[in-house]
Amino acid sequence: MSKITSFHPPERTLMGPGPSDVHPRIREALSRPTIGHLDPCFVDMMEQTKSLLQYAFQTSNELTMPVSAPGSAGMETCFANLVEHGDKVIVCQNGVFGGRMKENVERCGGIPVMVEDTWGEAVDANKVAEALKNNPDASILAFVHAETSTGAQSDAKTLVELAHEHDCLSIVDAVTSLGGTALKVDEWKIDAIYSGTQKCLSCTPGLSPISFSEAALERVRNRSSKVQSWFLDLNLVMGYWGSGQQRAYHHTAPVNALYGLHEALVMLQDEGLENAWQRHHINHLSLRAGLETLGLDFVVREQDRLPQLNAVSIPQGIDEAAIRRELLNRYNLEIGAGLGALAGKVWRIGLMGYASRAENILLCISALGTLLNEAGQSVDTGAALNAAQSVLNAHS
Amino acid sequence: MSKITSFHPPERTLMGPGPSDVHPRIREALSRPTIGHLDPCFVDMMEQTKSLLQYAFQTSNELTMPVSAPGSAGMETCFANLVEHGDKVIVCQNGVFGGRMKENVERCGGIPVMVEDTWGEAVDANKVAEALKNNPDASILAFVHAETSTGAQSDAKTLVELAHEHDCLSIVDAVTSLGGTALKVDEWKIDAIYSGTQKCLSCTPGLSPISFSEAALERVRNRSSKVQSWFLDLNLVMGYWGSGQQRAYHHTAPVNALYGLHEALVMLQDEGLENAWQRHHINHLSLRAGLETLGLDFVVREQDRLPQLNAVSIPQGIDEAAIRRELLNRYNLEIGAGLGALAGKVWRIGLMGYASRAENILLCISALGTLLNEAGQSVDTGAALNAAQSVLNAHS
Repeated sequence: MSKITSFHPPERTLMGPGPSDVHPRIREALSRPTIGHLDPCFVDMMEQTKSLLQYAFQTSNELTMPVSAPGSAGMETCFANLVEHGDKVIVCQNGVFGGRMKENVERCGGIPVMVEDTWGEAVDANKVAEALKNNPDASILAFVHAETSTGAQSDAKTLVELAHEHDCLSIVDAVTSLGGTALKVDEWKIDAIYSGTQKCLSCTPGLSPISFSEAALERVRNRSSKVQSWFLDLNLVMGYWGSGQQRAYHHTAPVNALYGLHEALVMLQDEGLENAWQRHHINHLSLRAGLETLGLDFVVREQDRLPQLNAVSIPQGIDEAAIRRELLNRYNLEIGAGLGALAGKVWRIGLMGYASRAENILLCISALGTLLNEAGQSVDTGAALNAAQSVLNAHS
Repeated sequence: MSKITSFHPPERTLMGPGPSDVHPRIREALSRPTIGHLDPCFVDMMEQTKSLLQYAFQTSNELTMPVSAPGSAGMETCFANLVEHGDKVIVCQNGVFGGRMKENVERCGGIPVMVEDTWGEAVDANKVAEALKNNPDASILAFVHAETSTGAQSDAKTLVELAHEHDCLSIVDAVTSLGGTALKVDEWKIDAIYSGTQKCLSCTPGLSPISFSEAALERVRNRSSKVQSWFLDLNLVMGYWGSGQQRAYHHTAPVNALYGLHEALVMLQDEGLENAWQRHHINHLSLRAGLETLGLDFVVREQDRLPQLNAVSIPQGIDEAAIRRELLNRYNLEIGAGLGALAGKVWRIGLMGYASRAENILLCISALGTLLNEAGQSVDTGAALNAAQSVLNAHS
């Protein structure tokens, strides 16, 4: 093996589907001195992290904590704890992550009943109502609040209400919504929810905040079989993330990653949750004005659009991968490719967390405009920048 | 909620069972700029990380990579991928982690056959041979190479040989051994192995390096059922951690945590694996001389002792928790408590990775000596320090 040296990454601007730009304060927090995962100081920090997550999720759920692994493991925590062999689960699919939910149900021995919607559209509440009516033995409704693969937002409040009308618990994917758009776990009566740290919280990837209602916890406590994952079994994890200074060792918590999440949540608290939602909203309007002036069309209709994930169609004749490569090589700017049914058809432009700011909007529009012109599209980059700035001015 | 502010941890010296002291270079690496998990630069770093892990494990196994979660998830990766419903697995238990293996087998629908040894002793190869003979339908032998709960080391080479003689694959827990004591995956023909980053690699907790032999991978590829965990399914994970620049998105990798691991492995490469083993060995001899001079007895007999995890019995009449509390409060020194069958009976003193150095040995002996004297034990701390230093001198 030839000698390998330290890795020094380039400085990128991260406007893809996540990870998004990480605030320097959070990167600094990661490098603070490691302490033991049972150290009394660390336990205090865990308690603060739980409180801050309750604020971010707008919940008073006691079981509100970060799973020690990425969002996919958060998803699996919800399904592995709530689904038992033979359980029927209604799964809404309008993008990649509904498909992953289906996989989870099947691997837990459950029976998924799929409610399919076109990629780029919100989950259709009428279809869900129909599926619930037709499957009175279903015990869970699962859906994605903010589909990262398309940029569509679904009406979580209505869907959860439907679930409860039919005596189902709800599992909600909020990986991309937490911190970026309105999300109210208690008010909307969500039963189990998971998110990620690398989207609108401006933190590094690797942790998955979750929250379980008392009804969901009851179900976990009263299972007839053990949770099939030892690592994700909430009956065990709660011994460590529970209350007070007495913590039972379960696994070794990712200490420094948790410093980063704590710092990210302190910053969210200081900004104010509603202010963060509003910032994401205004910056989306600004980016949208610029992109539309560049002639780029949004995939998702206006009322269902996520402010933090902007999916636009690739113009005719454009080599989408070549443009992304040039953005990265020339300007250190990352935007996302399409996924699944939208692969090769869209760009996904993220405005998440710390990445949701004026300078990123201008960089993205000017860089995309320049490359589109070079590729033979006749676009007016100056006009696009003016359009974006006008929106910002109107809201300042 | 009252306002929560940034968390600034105290500077501890970590001489427990892990996390161990993290080298400042590694902490700095964590704070480097986050880039995308599909960025070509990141993919290059992943390839380097795989090479460096192959060196650390002493293997040419193609599937050698870090699982994006702590060691417990690495354990679950091995069992969830290799055990199918009804499979019989011989599990050796001589401490906490053999018990966790049993749980894993059961939750995968397998049938564990336990081989029990006294806590603090190595796994008895004769008992294992007997169990293999009595269970010709067993398909896997699982054991812990370095029991973190007791400080005992088992003869991995012999146990793996026994497994193969009976057509079993081997699953080996090397959480505490990797980087700290001899471990040769290819030479010993280990089939599946997992480790942690927070022990002898001096890195932060949160990742679990694993390595699978071709025979083990064959078993995974030819399963009759899907792996029950979507997140840990190696058939899927390999699409992301496989070779070349084409990586299929599976989950979002913990980018900055991987910077830390890369840096830790570069440091191990620069020191040289055998030199690292030797350093752990000599520092253990030094600490041992000091602790024995303080009148503390080792739990594990000499030939089975792990150099990086020193379990000593609590002297009669000593409040072990009070001593640990004082070590932490007065000197910012963390040592470990006993676990399971050894709870309240031993201290576990780690000399792992960056924590395995002269200044830590002297701090531990002088602090423990001081507190033991205060607690009414008449110990000669000066003599203990001299004994420890003599060993270091003899090897310098």
